[in-house]
Amino acid sequence: MNIGVLGTGMTGQTIGSKLVQLGHEVILGSRDEANPAAVAWAKDQGQHALYGTFMNAAAFGEIVFNCTLGSASLEALQQAGEENLRDKILIDTSNPLDRSTDTWTLTVCNTDSLGEQIQRAFPETKVVKTLNTVNANVMVDPAKLLEKTHIFVSGNDIEAKATVVRILRDWFGWREIIDLGNIATARSVEMYVLLWHTLRNAISSQRFNIKVVTS
Amino acid sequence: MNIGVLGTGMTGQTIGSKLVQLGHEVILGSRDEANPAAVAWAKDQGQHALYGTFMNAAAFGEIVFNCTLGSASLEALQQAGEENLRDKILIDTSNPLDRSTDTWTLTVCNTDSLGEQIQRAFPETKVVKTLNTVNANVMVDPAKLLEKTHIFVSGNDIEAKATVVRILRDWFGWREIIDLGNIATARSVEMYVLLWHTLRNAISSQRFNIKVVTS
Repeated sequence: MNIGVLGTGMTGQTIGSKLVQLGHEVILGSRDEANPAAVAWAKDQGQHALYGTFMNAAAFGEIVFNCTLGSASLEALQQAGEENLRDKILIDTSNPLDRSTDTWTLTVCNTDSLGEQIQRAFPETKVVKTLNTVNANVMVDPAKLLEKTHIFVSGNDIEAKATVVRILRDWFGWREIIDLGNIATARSVEMYVLLWHTLRNAISSQRFNIKVVTS
Repeated sequence: MNIGVLGTGMTGQTIGSKLVQLGHEVILGSRDEANPAAVAWAKDQGQHALYGTFMNAAAFGEIVFNCTLGSASLEALQQAGEENLRDKILIDTSNPLDRSTDTWTLTVCNTDSLGEQIQRAFPETKVVKTLNTVNANVMVDPAKLLEKTHIFVSGNDIEAKATVVRILRDWFGWREIIDLGNIATARSVEMYVLLWHTLRNAISSQRFNIKVVTS
């Protein structure tokens, strides 16, 4: 499948590499036509890995991953172009983190979320929020953890969520997936990221996730 | 031990009953001198269970539990009285939920928390935030869940946190306790409550908790 990955940071590169390994064609998109990180990544990953602008990646992808920083996501998606995202599934892995301070705070929360902002800005795109609750390495290899843990999906389009659940399961290896509901439930997973950050400091590791245990 | 429990709702009654079962003397405190729920509870629990005002409960307790609704906590603690809380451990189980709407939102989050507000309002009290991430039944009986799960503590006073860890372990049966850091980390567990709420709706149960799984 042709897939667009927006964002050339660790998340974009990790997801892009996994998709290439699975045999997909990937364009890693960035603000610039030839972002050095994207160029190096494409060279390293071989012939199925390409680089280009956000617009190139979105136009190319049958499915698009948003792996940009939350603070830059809306602008990156505008650059990708509404027409290039229309009717497509946008898998949104971003978190609205304000990185201007040492303390982690969110730029939007509680009564709104970045997932909802993106869905409102691109009403004809099927936004599915997922994977934002784990580190990039865990996203594409959840079996590295000592036990099966949970990943969440939020979105308004039932069919799009079903497709994303298959991608999480068949491509990335997730076994425990909880559908939280519509895109407004993105608030809860974005707000969880503060606990993720606090736990990371407390246990001195980024390779962890939560498992929901019932009675 | 003499213990004050502020709040006569499900959390206050559940924690109060557990403490009485363990052999402690408990005053369940409320706004009124003879809150009907507190009177009925005390009658049901026997001679070690008493009821009274927030002030009565706080003055009586060597340790005080805040089990009031988050929206009422600061006022309840003012009624309890600064002098009755001075130098004591206040175990804060509350969440700053705005219950005026169907959607759960927080009255404070992101750059502040109820735990911090309480600590600032009562600087000579040792506030330890804990147990706010689970339902009352799970708080006092975590072994009901299918696996060992995690509970968190946040607070500025190291010794107070060590005492609370012993209470969680020896009285309530918690086996996996993570010290998140100072009281500012209360933000992360209070903001997690949105995910708790969303999960409750998704899995149709209040009896669950999360387990942190590493690699």
